[in-house]
Amino acid sequence: MGKIILGDQILDRPDVHIDLEDRGYQFGDGVYEVIRVYGGKLFTMKEHIDRLFASAKKIKLDISMAPEQMQKLVEDLVKENKVDFGSVYMQVTRGAAPRTHMFPKPASNTKAVFTAYTNVVPRPASQLENGVEAITAEDIRWLRCDIKSLNLLPNVLAKQEAADAGCFEAILHRSGIVTEGSSSNAYIVKNGEVITHPADHLILNGITRQVLVKLCKENGIPFVEKEFELKDLQNADEVFITSTTSEVMPVIKVDGKTVGDGTPGKITRKLQELFEAKINREIMVNF
Amino acid sequence: MGKIILGDQILDRPDVHIDLEDRGYQFGDGVYEVIRVYGGKLFTMKEHIDRLFASAKKIKLDISMAPEQMQKLVEDLVKENKVDFGSVYMQVTRGAAPRTHMFPKPASNTKAVFTAYTNVVPRPASQLENGVEAITAEDIRWLRCDIKSLNLLPNVLAKQEAADAGCFEAILHRSGIVTEGSSSNAYIVKNGEVITHPADHLILNGITRQVLVKLCKENGIPFVEKEFELKDLQNADEVFITSTTSEVMPVIKVDGKTVGDGTPGKITRKLQELFEAKINREIMVNF
Repeated sequence: MGKIILGDQILDRPDVHIDLEDRGYQFGDGVYEVIRVYGGKLFTMKEHIDRLFASAKKIKLDISMAPEQMQKLVEDLVKENKVDFGSVYMQVTRGAAPRTHMFPKPASNTKAVFTAYTNVVPRPASQLENGVEAITAEDIRWLRCDIKSLNLLPNVLAKQEAADAGCFEAILHRSGIVTEGSSSNAYIVKNGEVITHPADHLILNGITRQVLVKLCKENGIPFVEKEFELKDLQNADEVFITSTTSEVMPVIKVDGKTVGDGTPGKITRKLQELFEAKINREIMVNF
Repeated sequence: MGKIILGDQILDRPDVHIDLEDRGYQFGDGVYEVIRVYGGKLFTMKEHIDRLFASAKKIKLDISMAPEQMQKLVEDLVKENKVDFGSVYMQVTRGAAPRTHMFPKPASNTKAVFTAYTNVVPRPASQLENGVEAITAEDIRWLRCDIKSLNLLPNVLAKQEAADAGCFEAILHRSGIVTEGSSSNAYIVKNGEVITHPADHLILNGITRQVLVKLCKENGIPFVEKEFELKDLQNADEVFITSTTSEVMPVIKVDGKTVGDGTPGKITRKLQELFEAKINREIMVNF
């Protein structure tokens, strides 16, 4: 894990303590991001930091730090920790104050708590190559999934349900409408079209998802944002999920039933290639 | 705040540190309770501790402590901190482990983190006497509100919306069906009947609510658990909310509109008397 950011300082782990009354600990009152590091370079960093600030704004949380300062701090951390391939986890909470549901009063001078640390994580090469299995599960989350908040218990429970079934991900649905994965966006390919849930309040508009939208546009791959059902998922030609850490991940079985011929589909492969090329371009810029 | 429980120890506050990777901090992966202290005595303690264990079970969290040991610790804390009228806040998280949605593997030996502390809080005498005002707000929470979890961001946002409107509470509704308050249960009285949402997955079955059910039964007050709508709330003879800290709290205005004649209603007053008598009996037992 190496050094850690707390506030505007880079510290050793033993010097980082979280207060018992941090609202992140008592209410999940905060927001977070995970940024991928490829070849020492923070991938789509600006997009992630912008989204962190956007999430914070949606819950009226004042981060009390400029995005540029945050970016500099995180870049310094990645260098300090000599991360080549890995990730940065960063979160901001509304700070420590005597527990009461409502926000701390401005007069209390409660300050947001920013923390960040790095992990060394290789790309999931074998899973990207072979694909993964998923279950489906009811989406029981709140109605503001567009906010990347620390209220992740339903996501935790769905992911664990997937793990218990020997699967990589739980693809969620509300009354049969597929929303997204427990920590990913979910897509089907049908008759050459990539289909995914619209980016409304029921899903997180993933940064990888946003990259994919652009890549599809640039490469003439039909991309449609519309609701689709569990039965569409079961009858899809291809299924895949995306996330910062999973990239473009083929799903070859859903609820034990083979998708297509049971191997990653053609369009999924094409999107993987395009995404990989984008990563390589970004790394190159750095050299 | 005085001394604090961390695990099975009673410590000074400066000795209590929460780990950055505590799952309570990163996922809200934990459950909590607030117990009222009247005259140095923990009110309905067993019910609260039982519910804490029930909530933990629902999210498959192993508290790793017997309820009896927890009870003894909390009683010791209240004595140590010399709390006469106040409350105990207690929470259990799934512990600290490298961040991944799924539960830490048993082999990782991750242990639940139990913390508890006391507050000195007088009973809200003036509000109990005069009543409070409430707004209504959309219930955007997850679909397992029967679990008293640390995922409280929607509750926080609703409570803040109420505070911004100069009100005490936000009474929540799902598509017009009233569920409960942001940190309380909600009731109407109509034609002599007390009506509240059934104790299903959409509300927390409050301990004060459970006490009230018994008191109504014992005293021949009609108590009905059934769905009611916003328009029923607006046309109610009486409205009140209950919670551990608010007890039986009359609501005299909803969304700016006067309830009944604008003073606490007759049945609400009767329930307050019965609740007060129960508190006094409990305190007496202690002497």
